[in-house]
Amino acid sequence: MNISDGGGEFALIERIKKLISIMGSEVVVGIGDDAAVIKTKSPNEYLLVTTDTLVVGQHFHTEWSSARKIGIKCAECNVSDIAAMGGKPTFLFVSLALPWETQVEWVEELYHGLAEVCERYGVSILGGDTTQGPAEIISITLLGKVDSANLCLRNHAQQGDLLVVTGSLGASAAGLHLQKSNLQVSPYLQKRHLTPHCRLEVAQKIAPFVNAMIDISDGLASEVNHICKKSKTGALIYASKIPLHDFVISAGEKLRLNPLDFALYGGEDFELLFSIRPEKLTKLDNMGIQYHVVGKVTDPNDGRYLITMAGEKVELGTSFHHFKKRMGKI
Amino acid sequence: MNISDGGGEFALIERIKKLISIMGSEVVVGIGDDAAVIKTKSPNEYLLVTTDTLVVGQHFHTEWSSARKIGIKCAECNVSDIAAMGGKPTFLFVSLALPWETQVEWVEELYHGLAEVCERYGVSILGGDTTQGPAEIISITLLGKVDSANLCLRNHAQQGDLLVVTGSLGASAAGLHLQKSNLQVSPYLQKRHLTPHCRLEVAQKIAPFVNAMIDISDGLASEVNHICKKSKTGALIYASKIPLHDFVISAGEKLRLNPLDFALYGGEDFELLFSIRPEKLTKLDNMGIQYHVVGKVTDPNDGRYLITMAGEKVELGTSFHHFKKRMGKI
Repeated sequence: MNISDGGGEFALIERIKKLISIMGSEVVVGIGDDAAVIKTKSPNEYLLVTTDTLVVGQHFHTEWSSARKIGIKCAECNVSDIAAMGGKPTFLFVSLALPWETQVEWVEELYHGLAEVCERYGVSILGGDTTQGPAEIISITLLGKVDSANLCLRNHAQQGDLLVVTGSLGASAAGLHLQKSNLQVSPYLQKRHLTPHCRLEVAQKIAPFVNAMIDISDGLASEVNHICKKSKTGALIYASKIPLHDFVISAGEKLRLNPLDFALYGGEDFELLFSIRPEKLTKLDNMGIQYHVVGKVTDPNDGRYLITMAGEKVELGTSFHHFKKRMGKI
Repeated sequence: MNISDGGGEFALIERIKKLISIMGSEVVVGIGDDAAVIKTKSPNEYLLVTTDTLVVGQHFHTEWSSARKIGIKCAECNVSDIAAMGGKPTFLFVSLALPWETQVEWVEELYHGLAEVCERYGVSILGGDTTQGPAEIISITLLGKVDSANLCLRNHAQQGDLLVVTGSLGASAAGLHLQKSNLQVSPYLQKRHLTPHCRLEVAQKIAPFVNAMIDISDGLASEVNHICKKSKTGALIYASKIPLHDFVISAGEKLRLNPLDFALYGGEDFELLFSIRPEKLTKLDNMGIQYHVVGKVTDPNDGRYLITMAGEKVELGTSFHHFKKRMGKI
């Protein structure tokens, strides 16, 4: 049975989970969040570890993006995982598989991009592994730390919480789809797709007040489902409340796609989705933080639904036939 | 300029090093040892991090090895890096790039192999990333811890130290070469090549007494050169003292190769090479530890030499035309 026939990535992940027995009392969270959480000698601080592998032609495209930009995206998407835990990134490790014919200048530019992001967030690159491979494959491991009081997990959502995002969605996917269709891509959408900035700064500020948090790497629908599944809750999302940039709406028109689908199923926005008690929103207001309430956490028996623009109540799926199925983090 | 033309992996690594500026006072060792060493809240304990990427057709062969055995080798070679620092492995993260047509059972078997090694050494698998890729590529990140007093670095060798290995060398490379030549491979050589056991237990015992330590993943010559370069010393190695198993000698005969070359340039033995004051060998004797003195650390001006079986003094190279050039850890 191959991975596709076996129910794809989620079925595979469920099978793998059963094979791995968590040992030791030092593990706070193993598999199943944006990063693993490990106790340290200090009771007030946890160690965070996240890994992400980016494959040429799948997660980045050398014909559309410079090596520097690829490096930026690789680093940002890992920092985003640490941000979503309420943490601060510290040390980055790079494993590269590269064809022999790779240009040395390309590798240097990739490191320039990685280093640029690391400098921005005070992260040190502490090495890694470089090996010959059939294609450009970049594996990043990023360590981080988090005050135990600020740790934000996917399973912390509570019924009655609001579901909130930190910015407009769908821009990365809209940029990608325009690019794939050989249509003109505005600088805004290009930037959101090729050199996204994650929300570390905002995450640090809101972490003390939110319940569950996750970064939006696989589309809003997928992330809402992750939180609900882990927290054993339902959810109601209002299509009318999902923030879309004008360029995303016009990309939808050009591509004859519903622009909301970019937000719901596109991914790689690297905004944050979090759940929070309604009364705590004033804390965010007081800090001048921009946010968009897109729905609420409901009783698990109420299921997970989207209220469409037409007012219909439809089940909140996780995939969409325009969007390629990918494997994901276990 | 491509990587081959640019002077290969070592030239690339030197270029990359210049791009990475180590920040922060928490870093004990960044790039350039078997693992990175990071301070923790406890002054007596350091955090260790090592990453290794293994590529199908390069580091493992699906036609010669089961997924379980591949998993074992991947985990062992990472534990070996932690062992060489004098440390204990703790948490393992797996990043897989896999073609869609990969069999689910193959992935499960791979995890069985990883889990088997992790159980042996008390390591927990805490997740990772699974993504679609052009070939099977396995990136492992392994965390570990080490008592600061037991930390063994490549740059700690001193003139007058003996250079010592923990077991016979060349078996993995001999097995590989027989396999490549479609010759019969004895179970011993098969085991040493496909499911090596690293020397964690011995490393833990000897760490308090040795100066420099490194694991033998790229051949004895390469590892001696690493230690000498980092410690700014010379070295003298005696071919007659390099321990070779009878099966390695007979593999050399069958393949018409000098069996010593398997030991010097073959790699993947996952034995340890260490430097130690001569008077401290009795400590190892008292613990009943098997070891083989293969040479000594000399003045840097004396260079790095091998005394051949014929008594000639030749420069200690790092490569050999039978052995494929690979890229390595930065």
